[in-house]
Amino acid sequence: MKIFEAAKAPIRWEERNVTAIRGPGGKWMIPPDAKESMDKNKIGLKGPLKTPIAAGHPSMNLLLRKTFDLYANVRPCVSIEGYQTPYTDVNLVTIRENTEGEYSGIEHVIVDGVVQSIKLITEQASKRIAEYAFEYARNNQRASVTAVHKANIMRMSDGLFLRKCREAAEKYKDVKFTEMYLDTVCLNMVQDPTQFDVLVMPNLYGDILSDLCAGLIGGLGVTPSGNIGANGVAIFESVHGTAPDIAGKDLANPTALLLSAVMMLRHMGLHGHAKKIETACFDTIRDRKVLTKDLGGNSKCSEFTEAICQKMKDMD
Amino acid sequence: MKIFEAAKAPIRWEERNVTAIRGPGGKWMIPPDAKESMDKNKIGLKGPLKTPIAAGHPSMNLLLRKTFDLYANVRPCVSIEGYQTPYTDVNLVTIRENTEGEYSGIEHVIVDGVVQSIKLITEQASKRIAEYAFEYARNNQRASVTAVHKANIMRMSDGLFLRKCREAAEKYKDVKFTEMYLDTVCLNMVQDPTQFDVLVMPNLYGDILSDLCAGLIGGLGVTPSGNIGANGVAIFESVHGTAPDIAGKDLANPTALLLSAVMMLRHMGLHGHAKKIETACFDTIRDRKVLTKDLGGNSKCSEFTEAICQKMKDMD
Ligand SMILES: CC(C)[C@H](C(=O)O)[C@@H](O)C(=O)O
Ligand SMILES: CC(C)[C@H](C(=O)O)[C@@H](O)C(=O)O
Repeated sequence: MKIFEAAKAPIRWEERNVTAIRGPGGKWMIPPDAKESMDKNKIGLKGPLKTPIAAGHPSMNLLLRKTFDLYANVRPCVSIEGYQTPYTDVNLVTIRENTEGEYSGIEHVIVDGVVQSIKLITEQASKRIAEYAFEYARNNQRASVTAVHKANIMRMSDGLFLRKCREAAEKYKDVKFTEMYLDTVCLNMVQDPTQFDVLVMPNLYGDILSDLCAGLIGGLGVTPSGNIGANGVAIFESVHGTAPDIAGKDLANPTALLLSAVMMLRHMGLHGHAKKIETACFDTIRDRKVLTKDLGGNSKCSEFTEAICQKMKDMD
Repeated sequence: MKIFEAAKAPIRWEERNVTAIRGPGGKWMIPPDAKESMDKNKIGLKGPLKTPIAAGHPSMNLLLRKTFDLYANVRPCVSIEGYQTPYTDVNLVTIRENTEGEYSGIEHVIVDGVVQSIKLITEQASKRIAEYAFEYARNNQRASVTAVHKANIMRMSDGLFLRKCREAAEKYKDVKFTEMYLDTVCLNMVQDPTQFDVLVMPNLYGDILSDLCAGLIGGLGVTPSGNIGANGVAIFESVHGTAPDIAGKDLANPTALLLSAVMMLRHMGLHGHAKKIETACFDTIRDRKVLTKDLGGNSKCSEFTEAICQKMKDMD
């Protein structure tokens, strides 16, 4: 909020607690006031959530994705100057189908000791995410989309997903299209991530690849994330843990949440404000003078925040 | 074969073509003479296979795993001195359940545009692979086993797998046991692979992680693989492609196949021969004088082979 204020970003915040409650019939749901706020404003920014360990409690992240039908999980992974990892010049985006696949939640015991989980792939959701990926590539000046799959093994389900990607590719001839097995992507990713641009894939593969790619640029502490739904609805979030051990100690690194907020501003068309905050954040990291502990520094969260605000003042 | 001869490894080779044929009722099967040879000798060494694109033709690799119930896929990934990658000191082993999970091959169209694939996890196969992993750790002086799962999402199937790993851990108290989400493993793997030792996981996760880990040490051209069944039955194999573009040109890099053959010798208890060949191979790579193209050199396969044989002569 401080950084947004310093950037004069025209955002009015409504704060809502999204911790699930039990609604009619015992069903877990997002509290009505949080739901209403999202329905009205369409856009949310959310910090890391910890799912209570109560039996039957749904994952809070999954519940939010489901409640607002946030079908596309978008994670840009871009190398950060001044934060060294074994890789440079990473610049890719994973686009994960966020609503079905291995996350259907349908499981059965067939007989004692034999369990099945169902991976559900639909034409509709596959088409939607495939087209989203190409739209994203086109709108963000990205040259290519790679469909990631295991259609050699899951011929029908991944086959359907892949077919929808191919069909979308036909509609977006200005964007290059390639397809690759998930295992091959993982192997190539750790050898040379610079060969990748936009990657689109079913739910579980996206869970894996987005974390892998975050690792290449420095981890979840510096990687933004957006969950996109229809009609402009979206929730942006940092996806790292809640780090209860440092709660209240002014030690957290706000970079992932801040860069998610920058994605949010772009989503709202506020490109100038987005650029300004992003530049100030990256400049501060590049300087390596005021950094939180996990980034290799010694500063508090408030000091890092202050440094970013100062950068923006210097720009004016 | 030349290298084994130079190492005086007491192996008699029987060569068999495993290309699938259609048996009674049109079912694809391994040719009887290949099957008999394996049934008699129990141990096989196999090069990369290409599955013909004929409709309905099964993956040759899957068919072999199934025919001989090769339930454990074992891939040691160890950094190779002289072959530079962004990582040093990688020294881990992925152990993949090789018979069920996402590879069950059971898929349905529910209604038009809605497909399901079934992931099948059994108590028996989970127990078997979990115990194999701990046995492997114990017999190979490895300190820890990590179970890799998504039991937060697939609570019943991965939950069952995880439970069997925990139960096995109780039996092998001398081996440290940890559990980790697949996405977290991927993230940590690219940040610091040296933290991992033995990893055990369901089929698809193993497919992904074994390729990722191979990438860390230089790719499938230098990574060995073994498929282990009951009663000593095993097939060792290189898992890279067939590289038809260089077929017959004496340009292939035999390292992955050779290191798989070294695994085979160890499996047979021929530790001295294994050590000798392995040392000669690694010494040749470390010298960087005689290397195939993909390893950064200019030599032919036969010259690389000759260099390894020479190393062994020098040892005598
Ligand atoms: C928290 C968990 C349910 C979630 C997932 O598996 O999707 C997380 O790993 C993520 O990537 O957002
Ligand atoms: C060839 C293919 C069926 C196989 C798999 O997916 O298991 C391969 O990727 C492997 O890892 O051996």
